[in-house]
Amino acid sequence: MTSSTNSEVAPKGRGRRPGGADTRAAILEAARKSFAAKGYDKASMRGIAREAGVDPALVHHYFEGGKAALFVETLDVPVNPARLIDHLLDGDTDRLGWRIVDTFLTVWEPPERRDALVALVRSSMTSEEAARMLREFLGREVFGRVAASTGVPDPQLRGALAASQVLGLVVARYVVRLPALVDATREELVERLGPVLQHHLVDRHTTPE
Amino acid sequence: MTSSTNSEVAPKGRGRRPGGADTRAAILEAARKSFAAKGYDKASMRGIAREAGVDPALVHHYFEGGKAALFVETLDVPVNPARLIDHLLDGDTDRLGWRIVDTFLTVWEPPERRDALVALVRSSMTSEEAARMLREFLGREVFGRVAASTGVPDPQLRGALAASQVLGLVVARYVVRLPALVDATREELVERLGPVLQHHLVDRHTTPE
Repeated sequence: MTSSTNSEVAPKGRGRRPGGADTRAAILEAARKSFAAKGYDKASMRGIAREAGVDPALVHHYFEGGKAALFVETLDVPVNPARLIDHLLDGDTDRLGWRIVDTFLTVWEPPERRDALVALVRSSMTSEEAARMLREFLGREVFGRVAASTGVPDPQLRGALAASQVLGLVVARYVVRLPALVDATREELVERLGPVLQHHLVDRHTTPE
Repeated sequence: MTSSTNSEVAPKGRGRRPGGADTRAAILEAARKSFAAKGYDKASMRGIAREAGVDPALVHHYFEGGKAALFVETLDVPVNPARLIDHLLDGDTDRLGWRIVDTFLTVWEPPERRDALVALVRSSMTSEEAARMLREFLGREVFGRVAASTGVPDPQLRGALAASQVLGLVVARYVVRLPALVDATREELVERLGPVLQHHLVDRHTTPE
């Protein structure tokens, strides 16, 4: 696994100085522990602050996007999830599915991001905590919200189906490594999977004729 | 895990009598070991016969469908894969995607089958051997063949994409357990995922409009 290129997130910085990169790193480390131990829903900003030995206000200061932003940061993802969803929804709904696949590949194809994502998916196979994080975060916070925004019927099911295709892509391309999917270009994946995400998240009709 | 209801496949029967349920069970046990150790491609009918201590002709006698049939049997699947593919392809190509989802759920929803499939998918996350089996079998033998039969362009990629949606369904419904997917009825899954499999395996056009 490639180490993070963001020197502020070096996991060894466990100092207790009230500010600066060390505090931020201590909060992140505490967040990783809390999410792993309690799952996304039960971990709290207050509990993470306590674990990091800092004032809760400092956690909010460093992670303005709140718990979702903090969680995504522990995944080594370079984007705030709220901003990511805004970006996905900010544009033509007729192209939403394609935009999701393109954005997903932009964010997660770089090796160090991909490794972190694969690690989470791998953990979710054997750890109920990791499965819960994927369930609560990917299923509800990301795809559930996107589906809710399009006014499609039964948005929870639609979001879960979209999540299933993205999870399947991760497993098939990065873990099981089906050769044709490993070799596929980003353009091919956007072209072929864009309509699937569109079907799951936007289309009102039953069959995509 | 529920034990198999097929008394002929009781894994404890390791006798060396030249015929009957014990021989069949010994061959299956040897096949499980060979596939796990060597992967699907490198395991041979001859090597499995040697491992089971029987004549190779007996292996062919008990498993007329050859290596693919023997492999599926080790997965505790109630159907011969060649017959399964014939069944999938025997019908209106315009409904192939829906038929695949329906067949998949018929075969793998019963708890003991599902457990065996989930075990294989779980193993594929950490074992290169299990990943190779999924890759060679699901990616190539099943979905690669179905895609090749429809005359679609780039059948290997199409088959791999179809496999990715099915893998994603397994992971999201049975492992990560996204609530909306756990609660979805078989009819809902066939209705929503049928068009996706159709898009991956049959549709010639780029977008399913």
